[in-house]
Amino acid sequence: MTDIGTAAWVMARCADLTRHSSRPDALERVYLSPEHSAANTAVRAWMLDAGLDTETDAAGNIWGRRSADGAPQRPATPGEPTLVLGSHLDTVPDAGRYDGMLGVVLAIAVAHRLREVALPFALEVVGFSDEEGTRFGKALLGSCAASGQWDPAWWDQADADGVTLREAFARFGLAPDRVGDAARDPADLVGYLEAHIEQGPVLEARNLPLGYVTTIAGARRFVLTVTGEARHAGGTPFARRRDALVAASHLVTRIEELAIAADCLATVGDIHVQPGAVNVIPGRAELTLDLRGRTDAGRDALWEQIAAAGRGIAAERGVAFEFAETHRAPSTACADRLKAAVADGIGEATGAAPGDVLGLWSPAGHDGMAMDAVTDVGMLFVRCRDGISHHPDEHVEPEDVGVALDAFTAAVLALAREHRPAGPAEPSALVEPAAPVEPVETLGEVR
Amino acid sequence: MTDIGTAAWVMARCADLTRHSSRPDALERVYLSPEHSAANTAVRAWMLDAGLDTETDAAGNIWGRRSADGAPQRPATPGEPTLVLGSHLDTVPDAGRYDGMLGVVLAIAVAHRLREVALPFALEVVGFSDEEGTRFGKALLGSCAASGQWDPAWWDQADADGVTLREAFARFGLAPDRVGDAARDPADLVGYLEAHIEQGPVLEARNLPLGYVTTIAGARRFVLTVTGEARHAGGTPFARRRDALVAASHLVTRIEELAIAADCLATVGDIHVQPGAVNVIPGRAELTLDLRGRTDAGRDALWEQIAAAGRGIAAERGVAFEFAETHRAPSTACADRLKAAVADGIGEATGAAPGDVLGLWSPAGHDGMAMDAVTDVGMLFVRCRDGISHHPDEHVEPEDVGVALDAFTAAVLALAREHRPAGPAEPSALVEPAAPVEPVETLGEVR
Repeated sequence: MTDIGTAAWVMARCADLTRHSSRPDALERVYLSPEHSAANTAVRAWMLDAGLDTETDAAGNIWGRRSADGAPQRPATPGEPTLVLGSHLDTVPDAGRYDGMLGVVLAIAVAHRLREVALPFALEVVGFSDEEGTRFGKALLGSCAASGQWDPAWWDQADADGVTLREAFARFGLAPDRVGDAARDPADLVGYLEAHIEQGPVLEARNLPLGYVTTIAGARRFVLTVTGEARHAGGTPFARRRDALVAASHLVTRIEELAIAADCLATVGDIHVQPGAVNVIPGRAELTLDLRGRTDAGRDALWEQIAAAGRGIAAERGVAFEFAETHRAPSTACADRLKAAVADGIGEATGAAPGDVLGLWSPAGHDGMAMDAVTDVGMLFVRCRDGISHHPDEHVEPEDVGVALDAFTAAVLALAREHRPAGPAEPSALVEPAAPVEPVETLGEVR
Repeated sequence: MTDIGTAAWVMARCADLTRHSSRPDALERVYLSPEHSAANTAVRAWMLDAGLDTETDAAGNIWGRRSADGAPQRPATPGEPTLVLGSHLDTVPDAGRYDGMLGVVLAIAVAHRLREVALPFALEVVGFSDEEGTRFGKALLGSCAASGQWDPAWWDQADADGVTLREAFARFGLAPDRVGDAARDPADLVGYLEAHIEQGPVLEARNLPLGYVTTIAGARRFVLTVTGEARHAGGTPFARRRDALVAASHLVTRIEELAIAADCLATVGDIHVQPGAVNVIPGRAELTLDLRGRTDAGRDALWEQIAAAGRGIAAERGVAFEFAETHRAPSTACADRLKAAVADGIGEATGAAPGDVLGLWSPAGHDGMAMDAVTDVGMLFVRCRDGISHHPDEHVEPEDVGVALDAFTAAVLALAREHRPAGPAEPSALVEPAAPVEPVETLGEVR
C-alpha cells in the first residue's frame, strides 16, 4: 500500500476507479448509475483517510471537508470561508482513467498533505457527479447543481433507455425536489481550484509537466443543413445536379481553412445524408459543428465567416443552407489571483522562473465553467501523453503527477498566504492580482 | 374505356398498376410480393385482350405470345424465331408509375395494334419480375433468370425481414429448383426491344419526344474508407488532427471535378463517420461511390484518377485510404440492326430526318443488360418531365406516349421488313447494319 499523499497513491487510486464501470472491457461510468454510487463510496473512504468528513449532496456530488484548523467537519459552518478543490468522477464511453478522476484524487492527496496545517479557510474536496453529460446529453449537471444553476427543464431529459433524469434521481435515492439544497452560497467560497489533464499536446510539445489555465473556452454548437435535390445517380448530368453532399463537402473543407486562419478550433463531428443510397444523389446533408476559440469574440467572428461561406456555397450550387444553434457557452476567465496562485505553485514545484510558467487556454470545457457563477475559478493542467483524452490510451507519467501534487499543494498554500479574512463581499475583490501573472500570460500563452 | 392500342389506354393502365402497392400512400412493388402477383394478374388480362397467350415463368416473369401468323400461342414452338418486347413491373420504394411499367404496357399496346398483321417472327411481351433489386439487393433477377444467368449464390440473400430469396420463391408458389426453366434459348430469339422513360433530362433539353439508345452503361460501385484518428475536438490543434471527414470531403469535391472533366458520372450517395459525435474529430469515414460512363474504358480511367486522388489526399493529410469494389457491370452495346429499327421507327412516327434522330447512352441500368447474354438488344427512350425518376413526380406526356406507341410499332415492322428466315446462327449476323445508323450516332449522341 502506497502512502496517501504520494504520486504512487494517486496513480493507484485512478487505477482502482476503473473497476467501477458499466462495461467489463472498457471504462464507462455515467451519472446516477450503480457505478457512480460505487465510485462515490470508494472516494468517501479515501476522503475520510485524508482527514475530511464527507457528504453526498442532493445532486449526487461527493464532498469532503475539514475546517480551517484541520478538523474533519460536516456540515459546513455558514459564513466560514471555504476553498474547494476537485474535479469530476463521471466518464465518457470507453474513457481513459484520468479525465476528471485525476483531479479528484490529487485533491484528496493535497488535503492529506495539509491535514496538520492550519489554513485561513476551510478546505473542501468535491467529486462532481456529472461533467461529461454522457447519460442525459446535458453536461456539467453536478457542478450546475452545486452552483445553484439547476434548470427544471432538465428533469424530463431521458437517457438512451428512456429513463428521465427525474426517475434516475429517485432510483439513485435522491429527491428531485431537494436538488436546490446542493447549491453553495457564494458568500462562503474563497475559490474553486481544479487539476486536470491537459487533453491536448501543448505541454508535451513544450516539454513542460504543468501549466496554469487562463480561460476555459465556451463552445458554440450548430446543426448545419444543406438541402439540394435527391435524383437518380444515373440519369442526372452534373449541370442538373443539386448535390447536397458535394455542397456540404465544400463547406467542410472551407470550415477547416477558415478556422486555421482565425486561430480557432472548428470540428464537423458528424454528417448524415438522405436518402443515403448508393445510386441516388444526396438531397439533404446534416452536419454538426463545434466551434471553440480563445476568446468568445474570435469564435463568434469565425462563425460569421462560416455562415457566410455556407450561404456562398449554397448560392453557387443551387442548394439551401440553414443552421440551428444547439449550444452556446461563454468562455470562463480564470481569476487573476487563482492563476497567480497556481503559477506560483508550479514555479515552486518545478523551479521554473515566473516568466517560464506557461498559461494555456482550455479548448475543452470543465466544471469551473459552472462554478464560476458562485466563486472564482483556477485550474492546473497536467501534461498527458500525445494529448490523447476520451480514449483508453489516456496516459500521464507518475513523475508529472508527483510534480502536480507538489504544485497543487503549493498553490493552496500560496492562496492561504494571500488570504485575508473575508466578509460576504466578492472574494476576488479582497486580493490584489499577483504581480507576475500578467507577464506570464503574455509570454507563455499559447493555444 | 379507352381503346387498347392508344396512348390513353397506356396511360390508364400505368395508373391502374399503382393500385398494386405495399403502401397505401406510395408505390412500392417488390419481387415476389403479393403486389407482384396482383400486377401479373392485371397484366395477364391485358395481354389476353391483345391477342397473346400468357404464362408466368419459373422466376415470376409474366409472358404473352402470339405466333408469326398472329394466333395466341403457348408454349412457344422451339426453333421459331421470336422477337421479345418488354420491360419490368417491379419498383423502387416511393416510385413513379412509368419506370418499367410504361415499357410493358406500351409493348402490349403494340402487340394489340399488330394482332392482325403477319410477321416473319413470333412476338412476345414480357413483364420482368425484378429489375430494381429493391427487395434482395441484387438487380435484374427477372431478366437474369430469362437469360439463363441465375446464380445459385443468390438463394440465401435475404430481404429486410430476413426472408431469403429461396423462401420467397416458395411463398410465391414457385419452385426454386425449377428456376432454370425460365431460361430462353438464344437460338429462338430475334432480339429484345424495350421502351423506357429516359430517366434523364436530355430529350427534354433537346425538345425531342423520343430517342434510341446506343449503349447501356454498366456501373462500378465502391465503398471508400478514410481512416484518420478520433480525438477530442477541443484538445486537438489542427496540426495534430488526422480528420477522416475533412479528408473525405476533399475527396468528394475532387471526385466531382474529375468526373466532369472525364465526361462521366460519379456520385457519392452515402457517407458515415465514426464515432459521429459533435465533440469528437471523425476517426473514420465510409463513402459509397457509383461510377458510370459512356464507355467502360472512360469509366475505368476515371476510377484510376479517383483512386490516385484518394491516395494523394491521404498522403497529404496523414490518413489511410482504402476501397472495396462492390459491383461492376460491363456496358451493353445495343445492336446496330435494333438501333436502326428503333431510329427508323422514331423517324416514321415523328417525321424527323434520319440525321435528326437522337441516339443517347443510358447511364441507368436496364433489363437489356441481362438479355444481351441471349439476344440482341435495342431500346427506345421516351422523354420524361425534368428527367425525374425513382420519385412519385415521374411524369410523361400522353402526346409523347402516343408518338412512342407509333414509333415502337414502326420499329417492330422495320425489323420485320429486314428479317430473313433464320437458322440457329446468330441473328445479328443475318442483317446488315442499316445505313443511317452510324451518322445518326455521330451527329446526335449526347449524354
